[in-house]
Amino acid sequence: MEKSILKIGIIGLGTVGTGVVKTLKKFNNIKILKAAVKNINKKRDVSLDYITDDPYEIANDPEINVVVEVAGGVDPCLDVLKTAIKNKKHIVTANKELLAKFGDEIFNLANENNVTVLYEAAVAGGIPIIGPIKTTLRGNEFDKVVGILNGTTNYILTKMETDNLSYADCLKQAQELGYAETDPTNDVEGFDTMFKTAILANIVFHKKIDLSKIYREGITKISIDDIKCAKEFGYKIKLMGIAKKVQNKDVLDIRVHPVLVSEKSMVSGINNATNTVLLEGFPVGEIMFTGPGAGEAPTASSVVGDILAIASEISYTDTVLPYSRVKPQDNAIQQDILETKNSYYIAINAQNARGTIGTIGTICAKNNINLQSIIQKGIKEDNTAQIIVITETSLEADIQNALSEFKNQNIEVTNLIRVI
Amino acid sequence: MEKSILKIGIIGLGTVGTGVVKTLKKFNNIKILKAAVKNINKKRDVSLDYITDDPYEIANDPEINVVVEVAGGVDPCLDVLKTAIKNKKHIVTANKELLAKFGDEIFNLANENNVTVLYEAAVAGGIPIIGPIKTTLRGNEFDKVVGILNGTTNYILTKMETDNLSYADCLKQAQELGYAETDPTNDVEGFDTMFKTAILANIVFHKKIDLSKIYREGITKISIDDIKCAKEFGYKIKLMGIAKKVQNKDVLDIRVHPVLVSEKSMVSGINNATNTVLLEGFPVGEIMFTGPGAGEAPTASSVVGDILAIASEISYTDTVLPYSRVKPQDNAIQQDILETKNSYYIAINAQNARGTIGTIGTICAKNNINLQSIIQKGIKEDNTAQIIVITETSLEADIQNALSEFKNQNIEVTNLIRVI
Repeated sequence: MEKSILKIGIIGLGTVGTGVVKTLKKFNNIKILKAAVKNINKKRDVSLDYITDDPYEIANDPEINVVVEVAGGVDPCLDVLKTAIKNKKHIVTANKELLAKFGDEIFNLANENNVTVLYEAAVAGGIPIIGPIKTTLRGNEFDKVVGILNGTTNYILTKMETDNLSYADCLKQAQELGYAETDPTNDVEGFDTMFKTAILANIVFHKKIDLSKIYREGITKISIDDIKCAKEFGYKIKLMGIAKKVQNKDVLDIRVHPVLVSEKSMVSGINNATNTVLLEGFPVGEIMFTGPGAGEAPTASSVVGDILAIASEISYTDTVLPYSRVKPQDNAIQQDILETKNSYYIAINAQNARGTIGTIGTICAKNNINLQSIIQKGIKEDNTAQIIVITETSLEADIQNALSEFKNQNIEVTNLIRVI
Repeated sequence: MEKSILKIGIIGLGTVGTGVVKTLKKFNNIKILKAAVKNINKKRDVSLDYITDDPYEIANDPEINVVVEVAGGVDPCLDVLKTAIKNKKHIVTANKELLAKFGDEIFNLANENNVTVLYEAAVAGGIPIIGPIKTTLRGNEFDKVVGILNGTTNYILTKMETDNLSYADCLKQAQELGYAETDPTNDVEGFDTMFKTAILANIVFHKKIDLSKIYREGITKISIDDIKCAKEFGYKIKLMGIAKKVQNKDVLDIRVHPVLVSEKSMVSGINNATNTVLLEGFPVGEIMFTGPGAGEAPTASSVVGDILAIASEISYTDTVLPYSRVKPQDNAIQQDILETKNSYYIAINAQNARGTIGTIGTICAKNNINLQSIIQKGIKEDNTAQIIVITETSLEADIQNALSEFKNQNIEVTNLIRVI
């Protein structure tokens, strides 16, 4: 019985840590035994049984199975996690800087001690990317991994473009909204993107990556003029991490800098704080993972996924396999299409165009359907016309009733398409 | 020694089967023992030691550990796979129809026999989606899963829009290119999308889905006029599978039909045969997985990923854990930025605008840099102007040399941004 509870020590109770504690509440076979924080007197959003300011209390606690590190930074995390690994604890960490700089040391120590280190949250927050590369996609040879990996800089570049504001103004706005830190260097100079790119390159190409050999350039020199000129040529400017194989050579081209991407590319549509990772490999081809790259909840999703993966691996829960077998399930209660609510596009071929719009309006009103817009596309010589109606959100049953009434009035509906 | 080889029987050697055989070649601890096909005399792209036209030879072979089914259809696959499961074989299948119709029966039988059934390839071909939902994202409660899940119909709708062609003409083109089958019903009437939507809904909501309660409508009624009218309102038309929770109720709204999606949405940018799956859940938020939804290679990627997952689970390979521990790695050989080749955007602030373009051209030519375009943005009263140069692919070292020469000639480069 005791053995069936996974016992966790968490280091860091900031945004992400708080999200993790909240999300883990619904799993009653996982218990947070201790949390380590910098200031134990700070008021917090979550309450825990035991809070300390000494992370080694967690690393050395014989009861704890998994150490979750969401504090960030190298010092003291490197030494604390090494201590925990030597004490045979599994590790879940979101610490991109630590892994980019000391990943090799940490993974080797974990191997020696037969424990697992998972770090899905270290790259692209809530987007599953490390897991898929290591599992579903592991039959592939990859040529390339590139991404928009930093939400702050993508937010600033998007704002510069859409609001026609200078870099300095957008940075200030991002700081006010909490998207950028008081000292924004780590984000705007590309360090954060560099750490994440190095981690992705390591997973994708199975080689140790030397950070000092990665060319890195931030977004501080990008002017509103650059953004406008790029647009004239059909490009947008994005800060991207790039890691690719040099053709026919055992050499990797890894770098971080602003790039012009074609407005037609899918990457150019990734705006604000959204992140994206694009992989190119064989046999899979080109795939793209898009989502929130930071924030309490999305990052917690990845950290909790890692905790559950370890729980499965070491059989602390009833989900033994990574792709758990399907447990017996109840029947879904499924909604009938008539009970759904949608906005509707209705294409009408009106024989008697002049009288029809009024009839359409009357029938819709009678059936509780509000119109968002209605366009009549010219009346032809023979008094016929095409009329397009877009409704507000309406009940499908009401729409079907209206369609019947249209039919009775000889109003021909040529198509009905739902809008989402 | 013998035990360390995973032995596979494959049912179906069509496009996907061939891709699987090719991809598995590089894994020397996985061996394909037998293949079952409809016509053993057909010439094939791959050679195997033993080919039979009786799939039960595979289902009943005591030596085989994993049965890979890439034949499609319910008959005889359902009975063959049930026989294999009763014989304690793990199953990897790409058969969406079989799983949508008989998934519950198959999974329950697999539970009884303590074997695993994996089916990443059944939904969205090469895109990892079932794996991430079941592993990395398993801490989430989902509200919605929607997607463009059928490449044929998305190809037809894209072509209708871009080439201004009728549905019938685009279908014909798709058939000629091999994107659509001679009898296209399964794709164009939404059956394929319905099967995949049902599978996704099952995984995301953990309920048995009744196919007969899914509203289904295909794309055969969509006219080029509809596509044009939708565009006028700022929409594109896509065939989507939709599965969402009805707010505050234990009811699922599952359906397949054409939808109008805003041109500003990311989904509207998914064109041609590309698939996408969009998930909305807590804590992760909204994430989107995009990639090739069909084809020999992408689908093989997913099938092989599942085979390797089973190999890990049953410890037939040295990768025991789902997120395998990192093996000792070599240092990457990393390319210096000066050795990379890129296209460049160069912004120049010209003091003496009238003479500068010639000088720029001369310096670039001298340094092996071809210009793709050059724009001079008006000459001001004081004879200054902004000049924007976009180069063809050039060596970074050449570009840096040119920049030095620009400086010597008092040509001020205000920014240099690489183009990808």
